[in-house]
Amino acid sequence: MEKQTIAVLGPGSWGTALSQVLNDNGHQVRIWGNIEDQIDEINEKHTNTRYFKDIVLDEGIKGYKDLAEALDGVDAVLFVVPTKVTRLVAKQVAAILEHKVVVMHASKGLEPDTHERLSTILEEEIPAELRSEIVVVSGPSHAEETIVRDLTLISAASKDMEVATYVQEIFSNRYFRLYTNNDVIGVETAGALKNIIAVGAGALHGLGFGDNAKAAIIARGLTEITRLGVKMGANPLTYSGLSGVGDLIVTGTSSHSRNWRAGDALGRGEKLEDIEKNMGMVIEGISTTRAAYELAQELGVYMPITQAIYSVIYQGARIEDAIKTIMAGEFRQENEWS
Amino acid sequence: MEKQTIAVLGPGSWGTALSQVLNDNGHQVRIWGNIEDQIDEINEKHTNTRYFKDIVLDEGIKGYKDLAEALDGVDAVLFVVPTKVTRLVAKQVAAILEHKVVVMHASKGLEPDTHERLSTILEEEIPAELRSEIVVVSGPSHAEETIVRDLTLISAASKDMEVATYVQEIFSNRYFRLYTNNDVIGVETAGALKNIIAVGAGALHGLGFGDNAKAAIIARGLTEITRLGVKMGANPLTYSGLSGVGDLIVTGTSSHSRNWRAGDALGRGEKLEDIEKNMGMVIEGISTTRAAYELAQELGVYMPITQAIYSVIYQGARIEDAIKTIMAGEFRQENEWS
Repeated sequence: MEKQTIAVLGPGSWGTALSQVLNDNGHQVRIWGNIEDQIDEINEKHTNTRYFKDIVLDEGIKGYKDLAEALDGVDAVLFVVPTKVTRLVAKQVAAILEHKVVVMHASKGLEPDTHERLSTILEEEIPAELRSEIVVVSGPSHAEETIVRDLTLISAASKDMEVATYVQEIFSNRYFRLYTNNDVIGVETAGALKNIIAVGAGALHGLGFGDNAKAAIIARGLTEITRLGVKMGANPLTYSGLSGVGDLIVTGTSSHSRNWRAGDALGRGEKLEDIEKNMGMVIEGISTTRAAYELAQELGVYMPITQAIYSVIYQGARIEDAIKTIMAGEFRQENEWS
Repeated sequence: MEKQTIAVLGPGSWGTALSQVLNDNGHQVRIWGNIEDQIDEINEKHTNTRYFKDIVLDEGIKGYKDLAEALDGVDAVLFVVPTKVTRLVAKQVAAILEHKVVVMHASKGLEPDTHERLSTILEEEIPAELRSEIVVVSGPSHAEETIVRDLTLISAASKDMEVATYVQEIFSNRYFRLYTNNDVIGVETAGALKNIIAVGAGALHGLGFGDNAKAAIIARGLTEITRLGVKMGANPLTYSGLSGVGDLIVTGTSSHSRNWRAGDALGRGEKLEDIEKNMGMVIEGISTTRAAYELAQELGVYMPITQAIYSVIYQGARIEDAIKTIMAGEFRQENEWS
């Protein structure tokens, strides 16, 4: 394929790693961000030391402070900004764009309050004549591994398989491989909801439980997030793929994950406000637990693990009691869907 | 429910742990085995130190050397013998039984050569008038954790949900919980086939790959064993449950697993015959890889990871080349079923 020009919005760890993948494949990459000295650093030193201490980026990757300049004549735009500013940045992009582009995003979460998926927000804010169908890029991916070109396999989901295939092609190479998927709702909700289960698995670890219990919460957690996703319109099989099981394994079994660490600290008896203060970062699984809890109420979906985690985080329940409630619940069939 | 009398055939680690669960629930448990001093040890010292150095079993758990005595008047029989002797023991049980019993099994594997599932073997060897529909008990369960009463959640699958519910009831308590499932083929093949993926995940670790790659092989491996299982008649969703994803997490991410350790050694360049000699035990994933490879050929199922592992184990391929083949394969859709 011809080399493409791609704007990557958000110079975080994942945006930077994906920029390097695209640059490795010969594409022209423009990273846009609004922290001036970070963009200067990318352009002058070819580093992004906020996230990667020892990595030198290729000089072909250019930083942009001006969104209009970054978008000028690009073939594709990749959103990798935090969930809570997705709508704001999408509005800005829509106001600037004068030609049609491929729109992708690689963020994980649901919009607070509205519980909307990010691709819905992008659809709403960017007029259809200025964009392709949205492509969601999601899967098991520590940025720290991708940036050193360690093997990474993820999904590219879109309603339009042609544009999903385009995204598969621009990203794939010997160490990075994409699988297309037409289930946008599934890929997107799997990436967001799996953080709830990661918090739960961390909590069991913090309480001193073993591998059997952690594997069980992951499997039963997967069952209930699948149940919610299916009610939202997803294909249940997506949850056993890269963006579901794959990402859950990376997040739910690893102390590298912020969500897992937050759960671990809860399990050891720390208070949520202290955990959040100590981390100094947003813990997505915490706000996603609220969103999923509210969605489950609204849609009438049985989610005992989410409910238990919600009761601990937001209603002051003791975590030991929450686990006892789950174990004492009525006997279930494994594949019950209500 | 009334207290039951249950014969547990096979005093291995899992048979012993399950015996203790049943005894904790007030049932009369008889463990049968054919190693005399092991049975004497269970009856005299109430220990089974081949598997558990520091565990003292309840005196209510009785060891039996004579199969006819062990089966006399029992309500249920649990097979936990090695896969390769399942048929032999089933024949012996059939020759002795004079009344109808509930038949369960908790072993994982396929019969070598025939590739038959263990419940099929039990159906074939024990006449229908002497048994219930078979119940398969399977899920994420290190025996070492269950024996110390750490939280364990697994599945009980049967064609007859009434007998599955009976098994759920005799086993469940505050630390052990069963979920019923009517998909025998799914639960049974998930438990067997997941060992292939565990070997693969171990191999990636041995080769020095990171978490992204290991999560990917688990997710993509799950996709292909699901594909095979569906062709055999399973419900695809079973693979994302306790006996699939759950067990895969326990086996595929843990150095406690024999299969994972064998893969790790392969990845570090050790020869298969040395690995098997050093372990001094059968590595189920190795023989299951052959069975799955042959089944995939026979049924026309695309299983690139199984094929890659097969080529390394049985055809002398270099493991690095096998991985390159997977990464260079044609672009795929994530949920392709052929």
